[in-house]
Amino acid sequence: MFKKILIANRGEIALRVIRTCREMGIKTVAVYSTADKDSLHVRFADEAVCIGPAPSNQSYLDIPRIISAAEITAADAIHPGYGFLAENAEFSRVCEENEIKFIGASPEMINKMGDKATAKATMKAAGVPTIPGSEGLLESVEEGIRLSNIMKYPVILKATAGGGGRGMRLVTSDDEFQKAWDEAKRESGAAFGNDGLYLEKFIEEPRHVEIQVLADSNGKAIHLSERDCSIQRRHQKLVEETPSPAVDQDLRDRMGAAAVLAAEAIKYEGAGTIEFLLDKNGDFYFMEMNTRIQVEHPITEQVTDIDLIKDQIKCAAGIPLKEGNQMPKRFSMECRINAEDATNGFRPSPGKITTLHFPNGRGVRVDSHIYAGYTIPPNYDSMIAKLIVTARTRERAIIRMRRALQEFVVEGIKTTIPFHLMLMDNEQFQSGDFTTKFLDDFDFSIVERYED
Amino acid sequence: MFKKILIANRGEIALRVIRTCREMGIKTVAVYSTADKDSLHVRFADEAVCIGPAPSNQSYLDIPRIISAAEITAADAIHPGYGFLAENAEFSRVCEENEIKFIGASPEMINKMGDKATAKATMKAAGVPTIPGSEGLLESVEEGIRLSNIMKYPVILKATAGGGGRGMRLVTSDDEFQKAWDEAKRESGAAFGNDGLYLEKFIEEPRHVEIQVLADSNGKAIHLSERDCSIQRRHQKLVEETPSPAVDQDLRDRMGAAAVLAAEAIKYEGAGTIEFLLDKNGDFYFMEMNTRIQVEHPITEQVTDIDLIKDQIKCAAGIPLKEGNQMPKRFSMECRINAEDATNGFRPSPGKITTLHFPNGRGVRVDSHIYAGYTIPPNYDSMIAKLIVTARTRERAIIRMRRALQEFVVEGIKTTIPFHLMLMDNEQFQSGDFTTKFLDDFDFSIVERYED
Repeated sequence: MFKKILIANRGEIALRVIRTCREMGIKTVAVYSTADKDSLHVRFADEAVCIGPAPSNQSYLDIPRIISAAEITAADAIHPGYGFLAENAEFSRVCEENEIKFIGASPEMINKMGDKATAKATMKAAGVPTIPGSEGLLESVEEGIRLSNIMKYPVILKATAGGGGRGMRLVTSDDEFQKAWDEAKRESGAAFGNDGLYLEKFIEEPRHVEIQVLADSNGKAIHLSERDCSIQRRHQKLVEETPSPAVDQDLRDRMGAAAVLAAEAIKYEGAGTIEFLLDKNGDFYFMEMNTRIQVEHPITEQVTDIDLIKDQIKCAAGIPLKEGNQMPKRFSMECRINAEDATNGFRPSPGKITTLHFPNGRGVRVDSHIYAGYTIPPNYDSMIAKLIVTARTRERAIIRMRRALQEFVVEGIKTTIPFHLMLMDNEQFQSGDFTTKFLDDFDFSIVERYED
Repeated sequence: MFKKILIANRGEIALRVIRTCREMGIKTVAVYSTADKDSLHVRFADEAVCIGPAPSNQSYLDIPRIISAAEITAADAIHPGYGFLAENAEFSRVCEENEIKFIGASPEMINKMGDKATAKATMKAAGVPTIPGSEGLLESVEEGIRLSNIMKYPVILKATAGGGGRGMRLVTSDDEFQKAWDEAKRESGAAFGNDGLYLEKFIEEPRHVEIQVLADSNGKAIHLSERDCSIQRRHQKLVEETPSPAVDQDLRDRMGAAAVLAAEAIKYEGAGTIEFLLDKNGDFYFMEMNTRIQVEHPITEQVTDIDLIKDQIKCAAGIPLKEGNQMPKRFSMECRINAEDATNGFRPSPGKITTLHFPNGRGVRVDSHIYAGYTIPPNYDSMIAKLIVTARTRERAIIRMRRALQEFVVEGIKTTIPFHLMLMDNEQFQSGDFTTKFLDDFDFSIVERYED
């Protein structure tokens, strides 16, 4: 087992990894930017190394500085968390070269799954259901129009290097194609330095349902059931839950089997997530694979009693998995609490937290790095806490979530707590019958009523 | 079901009751002393009524003021928490007279179980094992010496109205009897206004093992397994755990059956705890019954998935119990975090909390009423938080507790966190092989090493 793990991240996920390392008897090294010098991950790690100023490319994305920090502290492994360098093939390769174990995917795996067209082709070849679309990149507008007429509109143009909705355009007729093509090319070229586009059949009334997998170095893979992440705003997940209100045991078995097939086909190692779109007919299609731990992993931990970070570390250390597939034993839901003003276009609201009280008690877990007096720096993403509740049923979880949200006090900044309170009262949300479009045309002014 | 519950208490237990009421859709009324005006229970309750100044007999123990608060807020029930008026027969009677449901025992039940000699005689008659001793109160020193020779020294003299070790004396020979008698009489007369004494066989190498019971108004009682509270200092519990390292399933079944027998024999209603002494031979003896919720109830909730406050409220509302006896599904441990200086005779350390961070993450629950900037008033007991961890095994729970204690930051006052950190490292504690005497001659100076 590793003796010392450097955590190449910040915020709640850095704390989350420290917690498991503590319980495993593994020493930890925090790295931090000057903007994060007062952060809890710096305080709670056994050692901490400053790696530069706030712009991420001068600190959390600076590979040589992080490798140096690992070398001077003699860390034998690096946990990248999510975001930053978690799916950076170059970083994975440099770790390998420096004989520091990267607790994540190999450079080849990251490249294969990071490029969406390659990922889809790989999955299709392995027998995993994929969305009908172009085989690889589109050569021309004409090819796109021809394919769209075969699979029938609506279709969607996507950037092969994309994410977060950038470089993505919905097309409903031949007439719209040229304009969408030009916009998507320009946007993806600017955002990712890669303007390759591919085409997909547009799935109507889709839900985002993902399967958590774990795989060891002997080629054994298991799944830990699904997470439903259909509550999104502009492709940003806001609420996640498991089990999904749209998934019964038969569907869970089929989606789980597809995810295990996918992981085994590519000889995956460690923790990963296969994201599917689930349509109104119960058919599901591979969207992408995340070769890292996800923000929403705690809800899976809550319903399976498995410490995902621990198993991720064990897999990286070459320890074989003992468990089989895991079914949800109870219900868990996560609300992402962001420092954002929901009634003002979810505008970021950094600043100093003057008063803070976390909810607590039975069935409540908060994964967070903030504290009273902490100033949220404007340099990073705006998630300040993950509020996770667990109960016997979805109905009881919603009741508990409302109670926990009411108890959650953050003063000095705006947060998405009022938005989540509103959502818990929303009848459609309560019914469980919604798609990823649920918030697309939502009137967020109603959130004002939940601000006290 | 009740529409509005007044909580006749303060601190963490007031918050604990509010949490469950919120989840049950029941409105809450907090009462508070002027010293507690900035307390969280005042903030989180739906309504709050100030009931007087800090000395408890002018506020939390003032029955007319509490009844008035219930009347002006139209509360239809009162939850007394623990301590204060929770086992006050007069309060139970006045609630009854005012047609406010007291969520606790009837006046008769409180009287019966509150007087230790009567309680013991009642239990003995019901067939529950009791400690050999005098039948009722001792008439004279001579009677005490005669009985002591029959049951063999060592014996213990106890005040019938006693508690917390006051009016209690160990006697190991005839020669010591007169002096012990005089001291115990004087002490109990002064402390309780009642100098009645009784005699018991002294149990060697005892563990404190208690059984949680729930009983409905139809006469059905169930048990929810045991809690081991052997880690005590001067009869004050410091750490509680379930399952007990000294109890196997056979013993659990027998102790549980005895507790259910006890509850049913007296037609008990609601949540109660039967405290037993367990000796080195696996024999157990009734000590006392607490006719209220206990401080340490959360560990039972963690291993049985039952909300004890909810079931207590449901029983009070006349709803029949659906569940059967509950066995522990996992392991849970609670450390009582007190504002006390363990290296200085556990001297109370009230004052202002300048910095605060609660541990969190997987398997960690904190029941507490404090916050950063809160000033702990010197008027009340010194418990500021209950740190509860849950894991698959005792060994893992100790590891998690150590991690959580390390993460628990309280600045501005002294706390028992270093004591608990020391305890988690103690080999005898880790072995599970200890008695209630474990801390009697303990050298607490070692705790200094755990203060950082």
